[in-house]
Amino acid sequence: MSLDKVNRDKPLDRLVARLAPDMAAVNVLILDRMASEHAPRIPEVTAHLVEAGGKRVRPLLTLAAARLCGYAGPYHIHLAATVEFIHTATLLHDDVVDESRQRRGRPTANLLWDNKSSVLVGDYLFSRSFQLMVETGSLRVLDILANASATIAEGEVLQLTAAQDLATTEAIYLQVVRGKTAALFAAATEVGGVIAGAPEAQVTALRTYGDALGIAFQIVDDLLDYGGDSSVIGKNVGDDFRERKLTMPVIRAVAAADATERAFWSRVIEAGDQRPGDLEEVLRLLDRHGAMERTRLTALDWAERAKAVLAELPADDLRDMLADLADFVVARVR
Amino acid sequence: MSLDKVNRDKPLDRLVARLAPDMAAVNVLILDRMASEHAPRIPEVTAHLVEAGGKRVRPLLTLAAARLCGYAGPYHIHLAATVEFIHTATLLHDDVVDESRQRRGRPTANLLWDNKSSVLVGDYLFSRSFQLMVETGSLRVLDILANASATIAEGEVLQLTAAQDLATTEAIYLQVVRGKTAALFAAATEVGGVIAGAPEAQVTALRTYGDALGIAFQIVDDLLDYGGDSSVIGKNVGDDFRERKLTMPVIRAVAAADATERAFWSRVIEAGDQRPGDLEEVLRLLDRHGAMERTRLTALDWAERAKAVLAELPADDLRDMLADLADFVVARVR
Repeated sequence: MSLDKVNRDKPLDRLVARLAPDMAAVNVLILDRMASEHAPRIPEVTAHLVEAGGKRVRPLLTLAAARLCGYAGPYHIHLAATVEFIHTATLLHDDVVDESRQRRGRPTANLLWDNKSSVLVGDYLFSRSFQLMVETGSLRVLDILANASATIAEGEVLQLTAAQDLATTEAIYLQVVRGKTAALFAAATEVGGVIAGAPEAQVTALRTYGDALGIAFQIVDDLLDYGGDSSVIGKNVGDDFRERKLTMPVIRAVAAADATERAFWSRVIEAGDQRPGDLEEVLRLLDRHGAMERTRLTALDWAERAKAVLAELPADDLRDMLADLADFVVARVR
Repeated sequence: MSLDKVNRDKPLDRLVARLAPDMAAVNVLILDRMASEHAPRIPEVTAHLVEAGGKRVRPLLTLAAARLCGYAGPYHIHLAATVEFIHTATLLHDDVVDESRQRRGRPTANLLWDNKSSVLVGDYLFSRSFQLMVETGSLRVLDILANASATIAEGEVLQLTAAQDLATTEAIYLQVVRGKTAALFAAATEVGGVIAGAPEAQVTALRTYGDALGIAFQIVDDLLDYGGDSSVIGKNVGDDFRERKLTMPVIRAVAAADATERAFWSRVIEAGDQRPGDLEEVLRLLDRHGAMERTRLTALDWAERAKAVLAELPADDLRDMLADLADFVVARVR
């Protein structure tokens, strides 16, 4: 394998290397701000999550966007920590909502401590992220992050109510995806441009890039749920089916269903009456209507959109890494 | 009963009457902002809480503070809606944490829907409150509310970890009380002064008033848990004892305990081994060490502090109502 191939395969590692001093500052700030003088439970819970690693893709996006736009001030560090805190807070609340038992290969906080700690420490991290962004002194940044927070929360509620509902449209699915992933990706890149005082065309391009990258990423995730290698995707094939979640492949197969298939979907998704062999039937129906292939093409299309808008931004090795990152998120289904 | 007596007894009703047009605007804004085009679960859950009434004391404090400082702009309405949203969000999360079944005389949202909805709709209301405060364009207001949010969240975690711990000090108790009640009261009055552009001495006085009012209110609440009329306090005598919460009367009795009493407290609070007759023994110990009486005097002292700082503010009927409100919150134990 050529070095070039390795480099193209690991754009996140290259971003980590390129932005190492900034990321070190972000990590110091995160550790400092998640401390609580009086409530030791707080750093216990957050350290459990933060130390587990995770890809830190969101803070990297903020740092890359700010540096790509020539920022030389201190506040991209605050904003990178902000988006990581928001992300960690949503993970804590998600685990309560999904009754999860594992996250990043470790027991979840709600299992190790209790749901109460997950809810309250999540709230604490939200409030800490809020303090961090206020420190930047930019009302525009606050506006962007307030709107992203609302989209995230609305998307989560939407996912809750859209589950088990065959009437879920692709438009609703897209909104759930924005809430789950793309809204924070888009805000992460946009605030990087804003804090750098980049021209409007660049700020818009950064926002569009983050949004498209997040959507591509989530569609791939949902696609692999029906056809990925469980050792790679970190969950089992069919988890979404068993939880009766309506994701893009199923939405497309349902839209093309005949009466018999419709009755099948109604039984397994709406009534929740799932029997041995049903997952195999689902995979057959997804294949019959080309739902997997069409979903795959949609993911590739979003990745192309992400790359295309980067033309608005200055030519730079960071820009190349962001382009490679868009390729990377869809590489598993290319 | 003279009219004067009636008036002094109901300062909240007088504030409602005095600020009726403002409160009407706040209610319109609340209804508008809790709507969600795509996730009908959100207004269902919030309407359940908002329609249940509650005293709306926090938005009234913001409106009163702004008007008392001569504010004539539109943003006190946004800030009043903001503090009510933050309050409602914390109620939703509290009910999950406390596993409550009743709130304001109605079944709680976590019982009617599920814990998931309470967690996520709470997050949604936080994000909406955040959008509302950004609209005011005041970074100072954002700073105050970010700090209040952190104090609230930290206080909640602290309450969780301080429960069942006999080493809980009065200083920790005070921080829990600030988190539960006083931090949002203080922010509610302070932002009213800030948005009005009041002189610093007035802003400080408003903050101190809200803080002291909230502390007095919460101490009275905790005191009544050991000696109130259940039809008045809305819960049964001894609820905090059964939940092994360390409140001021118990903290003071524990501090004065001899070895035998210490063993008793350790059994009922730390080990959670509560037997018939234990509550009666608790009441006897509280009485023996004068813990109830001393707690009562502390509550009255906080109410006096609240009233005293009002001297910094313009003479006005709103100022008189705020003074009467401080008397009112401790009237049940006077």
